[in-house]
Amino acid sequence: MARFTVTYWLGAADEADAHARALDLAAEQTVEIPRDIVPPGYVADEILGRLEAMRPCPRPRSGFLADISYSDDDVGGDFVQLLNVVFGNSSIKTETRIEGMSLTPALAALCPGPKFGTAGLRQRTGVASGPLLMSAIKPVGLSTRELATLAHQFALGGMHLIKDDHGLANQPSSPFRERLRACVDAVGTANAETGLAAAYVPNISGPSATMQERAFMAQEAGAGGVMLAPSLVGYDVARGLAADPGFMLPIVSHPTFGGANVITATTGFAYRFFFGLLQRLMGIDAVVYPNFGGRFGFSRDDCLAIVEGCTAGFGGLKPILPAPGGGMTLARVPEMRATYGNDVIYLVGGALLRERDDLPGACRRLAAAVREA
Amino acid sequence: MARFTVTYWLGAADEADAHARALDLAAEQTVEIPRDIVPPGYVADEILGRLEAMRPCPRPRSGFLADISYSDDDVGGDFVQLLNVVFGNSSIKTETRIEGMSLTPALAALCPGPKFGTAGLRQRTGVASGPLLMSAIKPVGLSTRELATLAHQFALGGMHLIKDDHGLANQPSSPFRERLRACVDAVGTANAETGLAAAYVPNISGPSATMQERAFMAQEAGAGGVMLAPSLVGYDVARGLAADPGFMLPIVSHPTFGGANVITATTGFAYRFFFGLLQRLMGIDAVVYPNFGGRFGFSRDDCLAIVEGCTAGFGGLKPILPAPGGGMTLARVPEMRATYGNDVIYLVGGALLRERDDLPGACRRLAAAVREA
Repeated sequence: MARFTVTYWLGAADEADAHARALDLAAEQTVEIPRDIVPPGYVADEILGRLEAMRPCPRPRSGFLADISYSDDDVGGDFVQLLNVVFGNSSIKTETRIEGMSLTPALAALCPGPKFGTAGLRQRTGVASGPLLMSAIKPVGLSTRELATLAHQFALGGMHLIKDDHGLANQPSSPFRERLRACVDAVGTANAETGLAAAYVPNISGPSATMQERAFMAQEAGAGGVMLAPSLVGYDVARGLAADPGFMLPIVSHPTFGGANVITATTGFAYRFFFGLLQRLMGIDAVVYPNFGGRFGFSRDDCLAIVEGCTAGFGGLKPILPAPGGGMTLARVPEMRATYGNDVIYLVGGALLRERDDLPGACRRLAAAVREA
Repeated sequence: MARFTVTYWLGAADEADAHARALDLAAEQTVEIPRDIVPPGYVADEILGRLEAMRPCPRPRSGFLADISYSDDDVGGDFVQLLNVVFGNSSIKTETRIEGMSLTPALAALCPGPKFGTAGLRQRTGVASGPLLMSAIKPVGLSTRELATLAHQFALGGMHLIKDDHGLANQPSSPFRERLRACVDAVGTANAETGLAAAYVPNISGPSATMQERAFMAQEAGAGGVMLAPSLVGYDVARGLAADPGFMLPIVSHPTFGGANVITATTGFAYRFFFGLLQRLMGIDAVVYPNFGGRFGFSRDDCLAIVEGCTAGFGGLKPILPAPGGGMTLARVPEMRATYGNDVIYLVGGALLRERDDLPGACRRLAAAVREA
């Protein structure tokens, strides 16, 4: 069977130590028994992870990078099991971090990837070039009417994507179905006035059957996408929607609940993998994450690594749009332009909501600043 | 509406800093807008998180513990949204860790908790006192016949729970349905011989609809429980099964893919919360985690904190069994007895499989060592 390769960073004192740790990892992720009792033949030759290469990590990082290959037979056509193979028990190890992976044809069939990606999102929103602008209706606790008014004003002001706050679920103050209808209407009314194609992106949450139902409800109601939180609801939900030929909306992912998977340098997932490659495996079209210099601790380099993971060649899977947010203000536009270039979504929330007396005007000032930067 | 309280550890230089960070967290987890633009009335009074108390963290830890209360209205009867409120965006912050929480009556109704717990698992397996013994059939790549033979021998040897390796999904070498039938038969045959009540616990994986289907297939086939990996498949799957009156099997959880959520001391989830309280919220009956002194880095204190989270009073939710594993050997039985006492499952895999020539004998020697320790 075809084999795919996963690259891990291993903190290790020297190459011998790194080599031993890499062999342990290859067993841990597949047979999960000591090497000396691995059955010979098919298990040892095909199933057991294989250390293909190892090299010192480029400076300034210490440690080593190990390439370990696995068989399509380890996966058996199950996306959850694929993730279990690439970073299962080894996620519990310190000084171990997953950096990247390759795809086999069987994996590319299992994970067809984003249906829209960067080009598809541009086409749907009518933004041929330059950054896209996204905002969020919030806070939780506002009535449906108040939230729909915000959506209307964002659309009037020329925001391209208007999403629910990720805390908007099905609370009594604004039940999902009621909010969906009201916001689709509000954005549609604004679009009729502006001639633009702003998209309303509701947050889908709840048990998986409910999420599925809400995703299709959003499509039927005329929403322009859906948002979900893979670290909370599971990593197969988006993939299932993206792979469904009947589901034709872009999917935005939100990082809530999963932050601890990335924010330490020597455990968990590399930024590039978690907010880039993994998102594309799941079929996500745009990935929300905390921008550098905001109220979270991501560095500019972390964010550039995310961009790389969103856009690098990856088994034919479409490139997707990074959507940095969290503390974004007008003053930061030049720095954002310099860092991210054109293929990016600026997610601006609080800084616009602060100007509630003239929200469309605030949106237009943001758009002008982006054009001029 | 009733309010529930979540306790966070905050790394902070002094009390003023900690106080500011706690107020930020209370807003981040609810309204996610700056405090000065929170709408007065319902949003400010009910929805916004409220800092109830703060105190220095008991030595030897530094930092502060903050109690923040949230409203049932923040949750709106959605378990995924409950988790989003207790530790959503704040999971992306360094120097921030979730430690504990309380339940309101509405939350206890949303999360009825484990159906079996410690007492129920003892009743089902017929182990009135002392530790329970669990092993795993593996590695991936063995045929169904070979895996069923292992299950038979474990049951003959007196293991109480015989689970799939968490890497066993639906691979061509042993498809789920075929393995389920063969292992239920194999364990049943052994039980008829021994007069014991060993339970076979298949791993359920795949898209959520498939998992649901496999869980019920396991029940109909006569399995003794199911195992799943919440950090991979999502945190609502187990809760949905546990809350379903038609599903009457215990649920075992596996830590794969989620390790980075706990293994650093100043980010993510306290061990007690992640492997204790959260498991009980999800309706898990027994929680697998890496034992101290094995091939993972958990300390004895980390493991004792997990035990505390599995057993502490928690809104009427049943206590559950910790199932430490990973590098467990016969030689460690006295230390395990001293640490864990009676209410524990010893998960022993590789050390038994090493004695494949007489697996039932190896199991009996383990059981004898546990009785005598």
